[in-house]
Amino acid sequence: MTSADPGPPGAGRDVASAPAGADLGLLSPMRGGAEATGDAAVLQAMLDAEAALARAQAALGLVPPEAADAVTAAARAEAFCLEDLVVRARSGGNPVIPLVADLRTAAAPFGEYVHRGATSQDIVDTALMLVAHRALGPVLADLERTTDRLAALATEHRETPMAARTLTQQAVPTTFGLKAAGWHRLATDARTRLTAARRTLPAQLGGAAGTLAAFQPPGPGAQAVEVALRLPGRFAAEVGLAEPPLPWHVLRTPIADLAGALAFTAGALGKPAADVLVLSRTEIGELSEGVGGGSSSMPHKHNPVRATMIAAAARQVPALAAILYGSLAAEDERPSGAWHAEWQPLREALRLVAGAARDAAELVAGLRVHPERMRANLTVTGDAAPAPALVDRALSIQHPPTHDQDEAPH
Amino acid sequence: MTSADPGPPGAGRDVASAPAGADLGLLSPMRGGAEATGDAAVLQAMLDAEAALARAQAALGLVPPEAADAVTAAARAEAFCLEDLVVRARSGGNPVIPLVADLRTAAAPFGEYVHRGATSQDIVDTALMLVAHRALGPVLADLERTTDRLAALATEHRETPMAARTLTQQAVPTTFGLKAAGWHRLATDARTRLTAARRTLPAQLGGAAGTLAAFQPPGPGAQAVEVALRLPGRFAAEVGLAEPPLPWHVLRTPIADLAGALAFTAGALGKPAADVLVLSRTEIGELSEGVGGGSSSMPHKHNPVRATMIAAAARQVPALAAILYGSLAAEDERPSGAWHAEWQPLREALRLVAGAARDAAELVAGLRVHPERMRANLTVTGDAAPAPALVDRALSIQHPPTHDQDEAPH
Amino acid sequence: MTSADPGPPGAGRDVASAPAGADLGLLSPMRGGAEATGDAAVLQAMLDAEAALARAQAALGLVPPEAADAVTAAARAEAFCLEDLVVRARSGGNPVIPLVADLRTAAAPFGEYVHRGATSQDIVDTALMLVAHRALGPVLADLERTTDRLAALATEHRETPMAARTLTQQAVPTTFGLKAAGWHRLATDARTRLTAARRTLPAQLGGAAGTLAAFQPPGPGAQAVEVALRLPGRFAAEVGLAEPPLPWHVLRTPIADLAGALAFTAGALGKPAADVLVLSRTEIGELSEGVGGGSSSMPHKHNPVRATMIAAAARQVPALAAILYGSLAAEDERPSGAWHAEWQPLREALRLVAGAARDAAELVAGLRVHPERMRANLTVTGDAAPAPALVDRALSIQHPPTHDQDEAPH
Amino acid sequence: MTSADPGPPGAGRDVASAPAGADLGLLSPMRGGAEATGDAAVLQAMLDAEAALARAQAALGLVPPEAADAVTAAARAEAFCLEDLVVRARSGGNPVIPLVADLRTAAAPFGEYVHRGATSQDIVDTALMLVAHRALGPVLADLERTTDRLAALATEHRETPMAARTLTQQAVPTTFGLKAAGWHRLATDARTRLTAARRTLPAQLGGAAGTLAAFQPPGPGAQAVEVALRLPGRFAAEVGLAEPPLPWHVLRTPIADLAGALAFTAGALGKPAADVLVLSRTEIGELSEGVGGGSSSMPHKHNPVRATMIAAAARQVPALAAILYGSLAAEDERPSGAWHAEWQPLREALRLVAGAARDAAELVAGLRVHPERMRANLTVTGDAAPAPALVDRALSIQHPPTHDQDEAPH
Repeated sequence: MTSADPGPPGAGRDVASAPAGADLGLLSPMRGGAEATGDAAVLQAMLDAEAALARAQAALGLVPPEAADAVTAAARAEAFCLEDLVVRARSGGNPVIPLVADLRTAAAPFGEYVHRGATSQDIVDTALMLVAHRALGPVLADLERTTDRLAALATEHRETPMAARTLTQQAVPTTFGLKAAGWHRLATDARTRLTAARRTLPAQLGGAAGTLAAFQPPGPGAQAVEVALRLPGRFAAEVGLAEPPLPWHVLRTPIADLAGALAFTAGALGKPAADVLVLSRTEIGELSEGVGGGSSSMPHKHNPVRATMIAAAARQVPALAAILYGSLAAEDERPSGAWHAEWQPLREALRLVAGAARDAAELVAGLRVHPERMRANLTVTGDAAPAPALVDRALSIQHPPTHDQDEAPH
Repeated sequence: MTSADPGPPGAGRDVASAPAGADLGLLSPMRGGAEATGDAAVLQAMLDAEAALARAQAALGLVPPEAADAVTAAARAEAFCLEDLVVRARSGGNPVIPLVADLRTAAAPFGEYVHRGATSQDIVDTALMLVAHRALGPVLADLERTTDRLAALATEHRETPMAARTLTQQAVPTTFGLKAAGWHRLATDARTRLTAARRTLPAQLGGAAGTLAAFQPPGPGAQAVEVALRLPGRFAAEVGLAEPPLPWHVLRTPIADLAGALAFTAGALGKPAADVLVLSRTEIGELSEGVGGGSSSMPHKHNPVRATMIAAAARQVPALAAILYGSLAAEDERPSGAWHAEWQPLREALRLVAGAARDAAELVAGLRVHPERMRANLTVTGDAAPAPALVDRALSIQHPPTHDQDEAPH
Repeated sequence: MTSADPGPPGAGRDVASAPAGADLGLLSPMRGGAEATGDAAVLQAMLDAEAALARAQAALGLVPPEAADAVTAAARAEAFCLEDLVVRARSGGNPVIPLVADLRTAAAPFGEYVHRGATSQDIVDTALMLVAHRALGPVLADLERTTDRLAALATEHRETPMAARTLTQQAVPTTFGLKAAGWHRLATDARTRLTAARRTLPAQLGGAAGTLAAFQPPGPGAQAVEVALRLPGRFAAEVGLAEPPLPWHVLRTPIADLAGALAFTAGALGKPAADVLVLSRTEIGELSEGVGGGSSSMPHKHNPVRATMIAAAARQVPALAAILYGSLAAEDERPSGAWHAEWQPLREALRLVAGAARDAAELVAGLRVHPERMRANLTVTGDAAPAPALVDRALSIQHPPTHDQDEAPH
Repeated sequence: MTSADPGPPGAGRDVASAPAGADLGLLSPMRGGAEATGDAAVLQAMLDAEAALARAQAALGLVPPEAADAVTAAARAEAFCLEDLVVRARSGGNPVIPLVADLRTAAAPFGEYVHRGATSQDIVDTALMLVAHRALGPVLADLERTTDRLAALATEHRETPMAARTLTQQAVPTTFGLKAAGWHRLATDARTRLTAARRTLPAQLGGAAGTLAAFQPPGPGAQAVEVALRLPGRFAAEVGLAEPPLPWHVLRTPIADLAGALAFTAGALGKPAADVLVLSRTEIGELSEGVGGGSSSMPHKHNPVRATMIAAAARQVPALAAILYGSLAAEDERPSGAWHAEWQPLREALRLVAGAARDAAELVAGLRVHPERMRANLTVTGDAAPAPALVDRALSIQHPPTHDQDEAPH
C-alpha cells in the first residue's frame, strides 16, 4: 500500500493503537458494555474506590480534608498507565499494589493518606461492584425496551394462530401472542432478578482481614471502635453502593447472587432466540430478523444473526456462573485462588449479558412476523387455540419497578 | 459361608433386595434426603399430581367426583412396579406414559378420567416441584440448627483471639467469634434463598402445549375458557404448590431459581467446611470435628469427614446448576433435550444439598474449638483484634422467618 | 381395582422390592449400562479388588495361599447387604471401611489377611476403573454398530442431494452421504478415544499414602522393597487392569482422560442427534426415527425420542467432566473433597454415555431417509453438490482397531 | 499533578493508548501468552489464512501467482484497523466479513482473488488453530523447564522424609522426592497431551458448507473434483497446520481435543500449586516460594503468589472446557450459536494455561525446600518411608518427545 493509497476503510487509525495482547472483542461479537467493563473502566472504578475511602475517612476525621481532595483529584484513570499496571500486577497477583504506589505519587504531598488501613481486596471488590452497577444500567434499559416491545407483540398477536411444537413436531394450535407473552414473562423475570441484584451490590471495606481494626483512630477504645464501625457505611455512601452487613472478603453472597442473576438473564433471553432460530428456518419462515446478517460466501443469505449471538452468549454464561458459585467455598480470611478466579469470569459474564440484552432489544424491535406462513404451516388441529384471555392475564401481571426509579445516583 | 455362620453384619438382608442397577448412594456418602428424592418418592409425587388433577377437575365439574375419589385411592406408589415403569419409560423418553396406562387400569372403571387434558410435562414438573418442596423441609430445619449453633459459637468466642490468614499466611489477629459470625451470615443467606425458592415452587398445568385449551369443558366459549383458566389455581391448591402466572413448560424460571438457591447453599456451607479443613490440620489444630472419621488403614487418624463431605458436595452442585441454567434457552413449546436434561441433575443437586445441610448441622453441633492452640499459633501482631461489637452487629441482623411459619401443609 | 383384576402390568412385582431412596433410573431414561454401573456392580468390583489383592499378595508370598482362596470365595456381592453398607459408609465417608469389616468376617478364619496394607482409595479407585472397563465394553460395541451403519448410509447416499444449512438457512447443496460421513467421522473419533481410555484404565495400589511401604515383607531392606514394588503389577494382572507408573491417589490422569473421552463421546453422538432433530421437524421431514416415541396427550405424534435422549445426555456430560477435571488440583496425599467428588459424577457420566451409545445405535439402525423430501426442500443452487469422492475419501480413513482385539480378558 | 511533576511511574505512556473497552489483562494476572493470543495476533492469523489460501490456489492454478503475491503482501495486521473491524464484525456476527472487504481493497487490483470459494469459518477456524499452535510453543517450553526441574528436585530429595497427609491429617511418612516425582509425572502427562493436541491442530477449508464444491475449477468434472480435493492439503501445508480428513465445520474433534488437553494441563499444574499452598502455610513452613508476593496492607507477608495464580487458573479452565465440549453437538452445516460460543472460551483457556505454565516454571525454579521443618513436623511413624527406588522408577519412565523435535516450521 503506497502512501497515496487511501487504504482500506478505517486504515487511518491503525492497529498500533492497541497494545500487543489487547482484547477488543474481536472474538466476541456477542459481547456488549465494552466501555463499562474494559480495563480502563475497571481502573477508574478502583480509583473511585480509593478516592471514596479518603473522603469517607475525612468525613470521620481520620484523614485531613485536603488529603481527600488531593486523592480525589488524582484519581483519574487517564493519568495512569494501564499497560504498566498490568505488567506490575503480576508479581503480587493483583493490580492494587502497583496502583496504590502510583496513586500515592500522584496525590503528593498527601500520598501517605492513600489506601489507609485498606487491603487490596477492599479496592478490587468495590471496583467490580461499581463496574457491575454501571454496566447493568444499560442492560436494564435494554430489557425494558424488550419487555415493552414483547408486550405489544403479544397483544397484537393474541389471536394469530400458529402451530405449537413439542419435541420438534407440530402438536396442537397455539397463538404467536401466547408465545410472545411467554418471552415477555422471562424477560420480566430477568429484569426483576437483575434489578434486585444491582440494588444490593455492596461496597467492600474491612482492612487486611476484614476486621476493620486498622481503621480505628488512636484514642479510647469504645469510641475508636465506633468510628471504625461507622466507616463502611460512609464509604458505601461515598462510592454509591449498598452497605453490607459485614466485610464480605470470604462471604461471597454478592458475587453468587450476581452470578445467578446473570446466568438467568442469559438463559431467559436465550429462549426467544432459540424460538427465532427455529421459526426463521428456510422451511418454516414464520419469523425473520428485521436486519439479518450477511455471509462472506453467500450474499443471498439472510441469517438470524442477533438470535445466534444471544444463543452463543447463553451457552457461555452458565459455565462462568459455575466458576463463581464455586468460589463461595473459600478458605481463610482471603483464599488463595477462589477470589482471584472470580475477576475475569464475572466481567465476561457481564459483557455477555450486556451483549445479549442489546441484541435481544434489537431482535424484538425489528422482528418480522409472518402470520400467513404460520397459518399455512399449521397442519394439526387437535385442541382449540389458546384463549386470548390467557395472554391478557399473562401480560397483566405487574411489571417490576423500572431501574430508573430505584437507582442510586452514579 | 455355612448356614450356621451368622455371616457378616447385615448379611441377613441380602443384596438381592436391590434391583440390579439400583443406586442406593454407595458412591455418594455426601448425599442426604434419600427418602424424599428416591424413585419411589418421585413416583408417589407423580401419582399425587394425577390425583390432584382429578380432584381439581371434579371441583370445577369437569369430571365426576367418584372418578376423583377413585384416582386418589389408586394413587399409591406401592401398588405400582417401579422397575417395570423404568423399563417402559425408555421408549417414549418419560415415565408418565406407562404410569398413566397403569393408573388408568388401577382406577377402573374411572380410568378414562385419569390425566384428562394433561401432558406428561404437567405431571413430571409438578412431581419434581413436590419432591423439591418435601426434600427442602428437612434441609431448612438443618440450616436452622446450624445458624442457631453458629450464633452461639460466635457469641461465645467473640473475644477468642486467633490468626486471620490470607493467601495461606498469618496476616493479623482476628477472633474465632468473627469467623463464626461470617459462617452464620452465609448459612442465614442460604436459608433466606432456599426459603424463598421453596415458597414459590409452582405447580405445572397447561396441557399438550401449555395453552390450557384441552381443559375447556364443552359449551359456550367464554365460560369454558374461564373454567380452563381457573383450573391451574385449583390444581395448585390441591397439590400444595404455588400457582404460576402462566404454564411454564418452556419458561423455566422456577428451575433456574431453585438451581441458584441450591448452588448457593452448597457453596455457603462449603465455606465453614473449608475453614474446618484448614484449622483441623495436624500442624494447626485449632478446631476438630467432634466425631472424626476413621480410616481403613490408619486407625489412629481422626479425619474431618463431615467437612470433607460438604466440600465434596460443594464441588459438584455448581456444575449441576450450570446444566439447569443452560436449559432456560429451550426451543418450541417443549424442547427436545433441554427439559429432559433437568431431571436427574436437579434431583442430584437436591440430594447433595440435603447431605451438606445435614453434615453441616452435625459438624457445627460437635465442633471442638481449641482457644489455647489459637493463641499459641498466633504469631502476628499488626492490628488489634476486631471489636466484639462487629460480631454483635453481624448477629443482630434479622433472621429470615423460619420455614415452619410459612409452609403450606403437605 | 377388584381382586379379580390382574392389576396393572407389572403390578405383581411391587415397589417394596426397591429400598426407600433407591434410584433405578426413573428420572434418567437417557441412561444405559445400569447393570454394569449400579451399586451392586460397584460392590462386586470392590470385592474383586480385595480378592485380587489377596491373590497378588499370595503370589508374592505375602499371605498364605489359603487366605487368598478364602477371600476370593467370600468376595461375592450377593452375600453382603448393600443397604447396610450405604448407611455405615457415611461416618467414615467411604464404603470400604464397613466393607472390609464385613469381608473379614466372611473370610474367617483368614480375616486378618483381608485388605492387608491397603487403603480405602486403593479399593474404590480400582473398583471404579473395573466398573468403567466393564461398562465401556457394550458402549464400544454400540459405537461399532453405529459406525458400521453410518458407513453404509454414507455410501448409499453419496449422491443424494439435500440442502446444506448454515445459521438455520439453506446455503448451498450438499448430499446426505456427506452428512452421514461426517457423523461417521465423529463416531469413529469417539471409538478411538474411548478405546484408548479403556485400554489404559489402571489398577490402584499404594497403601495409606501411596508409598507402597506397608506392602514390604519383614526382612532385608532391598529385597523387601523389591517385593513391594512388584506387587502393583501383579495386582493389576489379577484384577485385569493396566499397571500405572506410580500410585495415582493424587495423580488423577486416568480419571481426567476418561472424563475427556466420555465428554467427547456424548458430544460426538450429540451431533447426529442434533441433525435428526432438525431434519425430522414437521416442516422439513427429511429424516424420521424408525420407531418414534408417543405422547401422553397426543397419540398422533411421532417424536424423535432417541435423538432427544442423546441430546439430553450431551447437555449433561460436559458439566460432569468439568467436575472431574477440577479434581486434578488435589492437595496432599489424599485430598479432602476432590477425590470424593469424583465418584458419582464419573458413574453418571458412564451411564449417560452408555445410554447415548445405545440410543445412537438404535437411532441409526432405524433411521428413515426421505430423499424425495430432501430434493423437494432444496431451494438453493449456488454451488454444485459435493463430490461423491469426498465421501469416499472420508470413509476410507482407517478405522481404529475394534475393542474386541485389544481387550484384556475379564 | 502539575505539568512539572514527572508523574507516577509509567505515566509517560498514558491510558489513551488503549481503546475504550480494551482488555489488557488487568483482571487476569494469572494469564499468559498475551502476544500470541491478543486480537492483533488473531487478526494476523486470519490474514495468514487468507494469504495461504491464495497461495495454495495459485499452486493449483486456480488463481494467478501475482494475486497470491499481492494478497500475501497485503496480509499484515498492522495495516488494518482492529477497532474498526471489531465494530463492523457485529452486524454479521463474525470478523471475517469486514476483514475480507478491507483485504480486497488492500490487495487491489487482485481483490477479486481474496477469499475465493472460502467461508468465514474456514478463516476463523484456521486462525484459531494457528493461534493455538503459536501460543502452545512457549507453553511446552515452560512445561519442559518444569519437568526438568521437578526431576532434579525428586532425585535430590528422594530420601528427604516428610509427613504424608490424607484428609488434612498426618498419615504416614513419605519423602519429598516421591511428592516431587508425582508432580513430575503430572507435568509430563500434560506435556504429552498438549504435544499431541498441538501436532494435530488442523487447517480448515471447505467453503460455504464444507463441500469443497466452490473450489472446483471450471472444466471436466473428475479433474475439477480432484483439484478441489487436493486444495485442503496444499492449504494446510501453506499455513503450517495438519490436513484434516474432512472439513470439520461441524465435526469439532480438534476443538474438543484441545479443550481436554488444556483442562488437563491446568489441573495437572494445579496439583503442585495445591501442595505448595498447604506446605507453605505459616504453621507448616516446609516449602516456600522463592519470590513471594507482597501485600498492599501487610508488607511483612510472603505470599505464595505463583501457586495462587495457578490455583485460580485451574478453577476456570474446566468450566471453559465444558463450554467447548458442549459445542460438539452442533446442528446443520454451521450451527447458530455453538460455533460462535467457542471463540472466546478457547482463547481464554489458552491464556490461562499459558499463564499457569509460566507460573509453574517460575514456581519450581525458585521453590525453597525446608527439610528441617519437614523432619520437625513429622509426628507419625506407622510405616517406613517409601523406597527411593519408587522415585527412581517413576522418573525413569520415558519422557515424551520434546516439542522442538516434532514441530512443523512456523
